[in-house]
Amino acid sequence: MTSPAPVSVSIDPVELAQALIRRPSVTPADEGAMDVLQRQLEGLGFDCRRMKFGEIENLYAKRGTARPNLCFAGHTDVVPVGDDAAWTAGPFEAQIKDGVLYGRGAVDMKSAIAAFVSAVAHTEEVPGSISFLITGDEEGVAEDGTVKVVEALAAEGEVIDHCIVGEPTSASLLGDMVKIGRRGSINAWIAVDGRQGHVAYPHRAANPIPVMIDILSRLQSRVLDEGYTGFQPSNLEITTVDVGNPATNVIPASAKARINIRFNPAHKGKDLAAWIEHECREAAEGFSGRVEALCKISGEAFLTEPGPFTDVIVGAVGDATGRVPELSTTGGTSDARFIRALCPVVEFGLVGSTMHQVDERVPVEEVRQLAGAYTALIRRYFEAFSG
Amino acid sequence: MTSPAPVSVSIDPVELAQALIRRPSVTPADEGAMDVLQRQLEGLGFDCRRMKFGEIENLYAKRGTARPNLCFAGHTDVVPVGDDAAWTAGPFEAQIKDGVLYGRGAVDMKSAIAAFVSAVAHTEEVPGSISFLITGDEEGVAEDGTVKVVEALAAEGEVIDHCIVGEPTSASLLGDMVKIGRRGSINAWIAVDGRQGHVAYPHRAANPIPVMIDILSRLQSRVLDEGYTGFQPSNLEITTVDVGNPATNVIPASAKARINIRFNPAHKGKDLAAWIEHECREAAEGFSGRVEALCKISGEAFLTEPGPFTDVIVGAVGDATGRVPELSTTGGTSDARFIRALCPVVEFGLVGSTMHQVDERVPVEEVRQLAGAYTALIRRYFEAFSG
Repeated sequence: MTSPAPVSVSIDPVELAQALIRRPSVTPADEGAMDVLQRQLEGLGFDCRRMKFGEIENLYAKRGTARPNLCFAGHTDVVPVGDDAAWTAGPFEAQIKDGVLYGRGAVDMKSAIAAFVSAVAHTEEVPGSISFLITGDEEGVAEDGTVKVVEALAAEGEVIDHCIVGEPTSASLLGDMVKIGRRGSINAWIAVDGRQGHVAYPHRAANPIPVMIDILSRLQSRVLDEGYTGFQPSNLEITTVDVGNPATNVIPASAKARINIRFNPAHKGKDLAAWIEHECREAAEGFSGRVEALCKISGEAFLTEPGPFTDVIVGAVGDATGRVPELSTTGGTSDARFIRALCPVVEFGLVGSTMHQVDERVPVEEVRQLAGAYTALIRRYFEAFSG
Repeated sequence: MTSPAPVSVSIDPVELAQALIRRPSVTPADEGAMDVLQRQLEGLGFDCRRMKFGEIENLYAKRGTARPNLCFAGHTDVVPVGDDAAWTAGPFEAQIKDGVLYGRGAVDMKSAIAAFVSAVAHTEEVPGSISFLITGDEEGVAEDGTVKVVEALAAEGEVIDHCIVGEPTSASLLGDMVKIGRRGSINAWIAVDGRQGHVAYPHRAANPIPVMIDILSRLQSRVLDEGYTGFQPSNLEITTVDVGNPATNVIPASAKARINIRFNPAHKGKDLAAWIEHECREAAEGFSGRVEALCKISGEAFLTEPGPFTDVIVGAVGDATGRVPELSTTGGTSDARFIRALCPVVEFGLVGSTMHQVDERVPVEEVRQLAGAYTALIRRYFEAFSG
């Protein structure tokens, strides 16, 4: 059975954003958010596949079978509300006050999903396919979400030609920034175990703190690079150091620390891990205790080189907002790091300034502008890439 | 009214030690321990003055008015028992098993007080005075104990010519070590306050940890000295560093650390405090946050030079144990640091190896030997220093 050819229908992105916000899908909970989306997409002729990994709801939905396949990616889960009582309107009420929509997920990123659905609804048949790759596990550990969906799609030979991720990338005005890459990220947990003792008898103890300070000094002092085309310099931050010794006269037994490096394509995660481990070994020379470093790579650095695909995005942003977006690689990680294994990825969405905060909010007019930008994006994409 | 001249009576130091241990005087509680001691001393003709500061019981007791005044100093408070269930015998039962007395305070230092009372009981009239300076606040904050008694006695012109402190100074055999001085001790609490932020946007934050590491590296790297006549080299230990940031993607707002320095007479506490504050200021150069160092001097280094008074102790130890004690300045602080403001001080007591531990204990024979040493000490002292 073949679905009838799509026709243009009208879906208000603000109403759909409200319906999604009213599902309190605080990561990893779904609370029916994915069902709200799936019903809309089925109504638009999408073939919807739910892909559940662990407890996580994921959705891959596609309309059409021809190439190119333009994918919209995002997440329905949201971060916790913080201080519920501090919100101007309940975080899951999706109230509109003075033209501003309040709610958890208003910018990160239920409104962007709604805008993309609205854009697709306005779009008649395209010479190719449009797909959605939506996860319920982006804000959490991100282990049963996009990464697994991407693996599964790759295993079955599914082709996605280009992907747009709807994360809130705009800096202060809608359309002032899109992201064409992201730095990589690695965390390292460092533990130094010595021997406890009395401060008056240091020769009977082995204080782990000087070794820890040596390790952290070594790591902190290295200039990782001076930058990389399109990227900021890589940066290391020591995020915590903890001993927890309440006694003034006691040399503690152990010290723990954690670092994070955001790195550009000048580095690979495994090389940084090897360097961290090397410095730990060097600092441990002559120390009678034990030093351990556990490194975890959250994502490698990636870049979608400026070219025809980024031109499509820049053009669409211009159509809807009149702005020329900066092509940036700044900021944190997103699921784009996983999708980059399949195809070129660009991220474009709302202004992120209230994300993860109390009173996360967006002017409803900007949600409609974003839907307009996505509509233009779909049109420009198939003009540029089909046939 | 003049008290009758003292005559020799017999007080078993082991029984008195048991009576004291049975008072659970875990610092700062007294639980009647001071009363047990006071009754004994009154029975021996001592004029007893209770000096209460805050909630702390202190006792200054004296027999005779002539000089020289030989003072015995110590404390009736004890450290907590730790794991009560792990003790061979209840920590306040003062049971004797196979000739060994078990209990909190058995070596630190109720048995020494009992031994000194027993020594005094054996002593007839002396050409001078004998006094006791006993506090209930040595194991705790030590703010309302010996330091205040010493101040009060000095203010009223009371003279103590020499003092023996009954802390457990023996290393492995009774009489193998006496302490003729102690290193000083200073603690410094260092706080660095920066600005919290996301690791991906370090320019919007001010990470306090690199500044803290710089401070600690500076402090750790200085060789304070190579030693001082009669003393070990001064030593600095970083005792804790704490940030307590659970989030891998967050630059924390503040970091705290604490150091302790045990220093010989090559240093004064205030000079070390000034140095710590200086290094903090240097490390804070160019940092937008705030650095604070709070230094607290627990005691200055002091030394009672070897001479006639230490000869008395060495002779008495030899009389009772056949050993020649090492004259040492090692180990932690004690109330001797306060008494040194009044007169020369030497510390001599039991073997300290079980102090502050579960199953604190002492062979009863060693308590009796200690009483013998103190008896010889009193005799030798007045031979050497009277008239």
